[in-house]
Amino acid sequence: MALNPNAEIEITAFRWVPDFAQGVVRDLRARWALEEAGIDYRVRLLDQQRPVEYLLEQPFDQVPAYNDSDVHIFESGAIVQYIGEKSETLLPRDTQGRYRAIQWTYAALNSVEPAVLSLLLIDIFYAGQEWAKLRRPGAEDFTRLKLKRVSDWLGDRQWLEGDRFTIGDLVMVTVLRFLRHTALVAEFPNLADLVRRAEARPAFQRALADQLAAYKQHEPEGEAA
Amino acid sequence: MALNPNAEIEITAFRWVPDFAQGVVRDLRARWALEEAGIDYRVRLLDQQRPVEYLLEQPFDQVPAYNDSDVHIFESGAIVQYIGEKSETLLPRDTQGRYRAIQWTYAALNSVEPAVLSLLLIDIFYAGQEWAKLRRPGAEDFTRLKLKRVSDWLGDRQWLEGDRFTIGDLVMVTVLRFLRHTALVAEFPNLADLVRRAEARPAFQRALADQLAAYKQHEPEGEAA
Repeated sequence: MALNPNAEIEITAFRWVPDFAQGVVRDLRARWALEEAGIDYRVRLLDQQRPVEYLLEQPFDQVPAYNDSDVHIFESGAIVQYIGEKSETLLPRDTQGRYRAIQWTYAALNSVEPAVLSLLLIDIFYAGQEWAKLRRPGAEDFTRLKLKRVSDWLGDRQWLEGDRFTIGDLVMVTVLRFLRHTALVAEFPNLADLVRRAEARPAFQRALADQLAAYKQHEPEGEAA
Repeated sequence: MALNPNAEIEITAFRWVPDFAQGVVRDLRARWALEEAGIDYRVRLLDQQRPVEYLLEQPFDQVPAYNDSDVHIFESGAIVQYIGEKSETLLPRDTQGRYRAIQWTYAALNSVEPAVLSLLLIDIFYAGQEWAKLRRPGAEDFTRLKLKRVSDWLGDRQWLEGDRFTIGDLVMVTVLRFLRHTALVAEFPNLADLVRRAEARPAFQRALADQLAAYKQHEPEGEAA
């Protein structure tokens, strides 16, 4: 277990979120990277209503923020990359390997996630609105095209850059997991396998269990299934 | 001038794009970073219909891709960060300064650009569609909220992290420029000033001029104003 209340590294997470968000909130990325790197961390849990001072730490009022004795940073992509610096497991040391991993981190967050999240928002937040019904087929097609691009690249590789798991795979898989309410990833068997392989990693399992355990512990009354 | 046909560094760009895209296509980010760093580069121009092999270089069929003797990479965020490594001007050397700059690069691309581009797509690609008309007010409000978050953070700072321009400012400004067809940025005077300050930099002026010069040279017949 890398979760340790006396650890130097602290990340922020939510005390509780509704079902649709459990298991995909972005602190999962930081937890997973820290578990892969074998680095202890502690968690500062935030209520859905964050204090206004939190904006000084995370200007977009999101989680995670990351603090250690060297840096205070936000944005899950930057945090995962920073953790990657501490672990050759996650971020190769040679320049090409290093930047191939970093490029896939950016690709996951900028070339894939916007399409994926637009579909998630239509299905979860805007479900029932007229524009969402009209837009959904187009948004689904656009998401499918992005998945096809990743699938075509991946081919029969084990991970995005070959036989080695990097921060690029970690972030890409967390993006694909936003589609778990759909059958889209299953349309691309190599992507579905990528997600399964990644989710089977012990580090992922620990990260997910720890995120969910906090929600379970802080479940509001009346929200139990 | 950093544009040099014999340079070792090569980026890809489009031979020509329609008016609405001129001056905002993402190779501008790489050109601008290279100009700030004072590094020579050459450009490989691509037609709108790219050869299928280009997907091996840029799996999302976009520009820019970047090649030098050390790396072959894609994604403008990764490319700008890589160029930043070559220049203390763009990416501070101390860990905190370095990751504050990197975090703003990710923030621009993942916390701001998706909202901004959703509005751009509604206004340019989907204009006239029923869902786009219904969605536009909500998409505008969401974009405005993201701008407010950046504006609140920026306050009276010169750049996002103080008195020093970094890759985070460079990428954020290119994201804000996607809104040039609206008055949204003008609602936040400190953001409008940030964009003006950035655009006044000689490196930006050269990068923009070189991108536009290629389009002018390759303008299809009948497209002249």
